[in-house]
Amino acid sequence: MIEPLPPSPMSQDNLGGRADLALMPSGEAPRLRADAARNRTRLLEVAARLAAERGIANVTMEDIACGAGVGKGTVFRRFGDRTGLLVELLSHHEQQFQSSFLSGPPPLGPGAPPAQRLRAFGCTVIRHERAHRDFYLAAHAEPGRRRTSPAYQFRLAHVGMLLREARVDGDIELIAHALLGYLETVLIDDLLTHRGISVERVEAGWCDLVDRFTG
Amino acid sequence: MIEPLPPSPMSQDNLGGRADLALMPSGEAPRLRADAARNRTRLLEVAARLAAERGIANVTMEDIACGAGVGKGTVFRRFGDRTGLLVELLSHHEQQFQSSFLSGPPPLGPGAPPAQRLRAFGCTVIRHERAHRDFYLAAHAEPGRRRTSPAYQFRLAHVGMLLREARVDGDIELIAHALLGYLETVLIDDLLTHRGISVERVEAGWCDLVDRFTG
Repeated sequence: MIEPLPPSPMSQDNLGGRADLALMPSGEAPRLRADAARNRTRLLEVAARLAAERGIANVTMEDIACGAGVGKGTVFRRFGDRTGLLVELLSHHEQQFQSSFLSGPPPLGPGAPPAQRLRAFGCTVIRHERAHRDFYLAAHAEPGRRRTSPAYQFRLAHVGMLLREARVDGDIELIAHALLGYLETVLIDDLLTHRGISVERVEAGWCDLVDRFTG
Repeated sequence: MIEPLPPSPMSQDNLGGRADLALMPSGEAPRLRADAARNRTRLLEVAARLAAERGIANVTMEDIACGAGVGKGTVFRRFGDRTGLLVELLSHHEQQFQSSFLSGPPPLGPGAPPAQRLRAFGCTVIRHERAHRDFYLAAHAEPGRRRTSPAYQFRLAHVGMLLREARVDGDIELIAHALLGYLETVLIDDLLTHRGISVERVEAGWCDLVDRFTG
């Protein structure tokens, strides 16, 4: 399992400092003691595993405490309430995903040609959001907020960078939006869940789209 | 002004009979008497004009009655209430738009090469939804419902038909979704309103996208 990035302050305005765009809970103490940080990660991993097994709607704070071998009070102290837990879980998933395309092994991470990285990026988004469907659908319930989220800005910057590296000719910003439009959580979910299109076919559609731009 | 299509029963399931996909209010009496139909069209045109001038939030049922030279009771009898009016107005706009690409003059309507019709289609969607922004943003407030709407199905079928006519190689259904992703109401609004991108640039981005597929 990929280790999440260390907590850092969130900034939506600074597109240059890309690590700042990680979907981080705000108001974090700058340093958690090492054991508290490990504790947080363990609780989130237990919560993520239980959510994957039975859906987040069927996971109680008590289940998480039990799975992590700690008292229920510890879970409440750490996350405040259930909403706090959901926010941190989405942040946790997004951090894992971001670190995999920023510094993970190729072709997703650095080292592969940009066109190949772009293909891997889309296929990973499709599978990643599928694996954490509950969270991403909930996070996209308000269409107006989706594109202002740090997660979207981060992906936009990443895709733009790879398009530039691949020396794609054209309006890079708009092409990046067009590509991310195909990866939209609700579209992919509709294709897979309601239109009976396989993950493999949706991925092939992504690779075709990338190839139209990268040649 | 393009005359709206005559009322027809709405069906979401029948993608073959394209006229059935028009965004029509359900529960319509199959035939309105000719003068009642003219009356409805006149009221909708007055409402659309007032909405364009001052935003739909600032248009009362009384304003519409006054503008059309009828009593307020006539407006309420025709639309039931304000929500009924909004539904019929969106339907009215969508019908005008649909008839323009189904049977209007080229390049939007039949007669032009398919690649040229596709370009005109996107540019018209961008301008049409811009002109009726209030309505389309309100209609897209629930992201899960957007792609099941008759209006989306209609556009999907139209774009798919033009891609086939243009002999585009690839997964036509997914390419049509990808193209419509670029035209998503909330994305276009974000580009124009929050990112300061001009309509001309957004249109050029659409034409570039179409050209990548139609060569």
